[in-house]
Amino acid sequence: MRVFGLDEISQVATPAVVFDAVRSALIAHAEGRTSVPAPMVLEFPEYAGDTHVKAGHVGGTPYFVVKVASTFGSVNNGLMLAVDATNGQPAAVLADEGKLTAWRTAAAGALITDAMTPSGVDEVAVLGTGEQALLQVLWLRELRPLTRVKVWGRRPEAVERLCAALTAEGVNATPDGLTGAPCVITTTAAREPLPLEAFRGAVHITGIGTDMPGKGELPPKVFADAFIATDDHTQCLHHGDFGNAVRAGVVEATADVAVGEVLRDGRPDVRRSVADLTGVGATDAGVAGAVLGQLVR
Amino acid sequence: MRVFGLDEISQVATPAVVFDAVRSALIAHAEGRTSVPAPMVLEFPEYAGDTHVKAGHVGGTPYFVVKVASTFGSVNNGLMLAVDATNGQPAAVLADEGKLTAWRTAAAGALITDAMTPSGVDEVAVLGTGEQALLQVLWLRELRPLTRVKVWGRRPEAVERLCAALTAEGVNATPDGLTGAPCVITTTAAREPLPLEAFRGAVHITGIGTDMPGKGELPPKVFADAFIATDDHTQCLHHGDFGNAVRAGVVEATADVAVGEVLRDGRPDVRRSVADLTGVGATDAGVAGAVLGQLVR
Repeated sequence: MRVFGLDEISQVATPAVVFDAVRSALIAHAEGRTSVPAPMVLEFPEYAGDTHVKAGHVGGTPYFVVKVASTFGSVNNGLMLAVDATNGQPAAVLADEGKLTAWRTAAAGALITDAMTPSGVDEVAVLGTGEQALLQVLWLRELRPLTRVKVWGRRPEAVERLCAALTAEGVNATPDGLTGAPCVITTTAAREPLPLEAFRGAVHITGIGTDMPGKGELPPKVFADAFIATDDHTQCLHHGDFGNAVRAGVVEATADVAVGEVLRDGRPDVRRSVADLTGVGATDAGVAGAVLGQLVR
Repeated sequence: MRVFGLDEISQVATPAVVFDAVRSALIAHAEGRTSVPAPMVLEFPEYAGDTHVKAGHVGGTPYFVVKVASTFGSVNNGLMLAVDATNGQPAAVLADEGKLTAWRTAAAGALITDAMTPSGVDEVAVLGTGEQALLQVLWLRELRPLTRVKVWGRRPEAVERLCAALTAEGVNATPDGLTGAPCVITTTAAREPLPLEAFRGAVHITGIGTDMPGKGELPPKVFADAFIATDDHTQCLHHGDFGNAVRAGVVEATADVAVGEVLRDGRPDVRRSVADLTGVGATDAGVAGAVLGQLVR
């Protein structure tokens, strides 16, 4: 069994490869062509750690993937195991230190944010200051021009650091995320809704951070009368912001469509939209398969 | 990250190491000191394949484990990934080709069969002719003398093969399992209950084979008035023979105790007992941790 390290993986996991794999996986997932069991979560409160185990297979592709992704404190880690879907033989470990998860999350968010935000919009607010806050902007910029990115976070020094990192990448970033933008992306680990004022001017909102029960970053109100897309209906109902809004009585449990449908068919003519992403194992399988395909060819 | 192959693993995974790790893990599990999320199952019907992903951690131990175990046709495969429970860093892959799962299943079955069967009993019937049929007998023999093992299976040639394999190991094996014995062990993938006659003379029954919804090998009737032990209450209720008996209305859903309690406290004075084992991630974690401890010391 081969083990590929982050250096080898980074060389082949280009945005083009990752975007293509994630897009295909999300469309396959929307069309019921994927097999994705409910994920597992292990918690290690004494080390501020949690580990998510996800598995997935895109029907007809050569590998299924089991992914282990950990966050201990602010440190992410993990790997993906690719298994031959025709005989159960372990094929390779992608010891990606959690980066493929970060990239597929960035790609999924950027793809759906781009697909659901009216094409003229070039101003974005990002709530949260972690790795995904940076990546969501940088990967979205691969898909559309951004003239301004407004940043908000609870800790001013983290906001400053993210603005500096974005500026270094040539992005015009300012620390006024709370004033909102037509497009708002949330990337926090919040357990209470973020300030409503940041969402007032939004025509599209993408929620990235809510990935387990107990978390919740979008004020339920933002779902009211919005066009809603989820990356996995059951999962988002169970532990996404969509589920929180349903339990708050703001929307019906059947109010969502699959993000893969939007990626396939394009944005419908709506006034306001919300995408809730909880991360689906099918995208892990898609990305790992694509990367492994590049590595072993 | 280190990858250990089956040769290296076999050298350190002695019965003593595996018995000790499984016993500790089952007792810890009974005492609520383990963390074991619900397992995941992926099915590949076009290749007669299914893959189980289990995770587990025994509180206070250095590693948690994510295990991938596949059965495609009659071929088992798999590996265990040990992850540092203090920081989420992948520590090692035990590329055990599914053997650690086979051994911990054998050890768990043998430990509980031995603990629940009256000490004088030295005659066993084994229903099923696969790898676990062989291993359950051989590992039980490590714990108590066996004067006779009666074998039953649907295919006569498989019965003959198992009898020959047991005989080669010095076990007195005969192809008359259907006539039963005081101790009966079932190791089949049956989806319909096995013939009731095989269980008529049993004072103890251990069910090993039922590990996913749709399977069921023990006739529900054998649970009536028996002392019942399960390796995981929720799991056995969901997809074990115990759950099948509860759904058949034969026993209450609260009729079981944890096998770990029996291992800790000994066998109560009962007339007849049944153990239902579905396989718990805590034993994977225990065995992988113990094996890895031997490998890296």
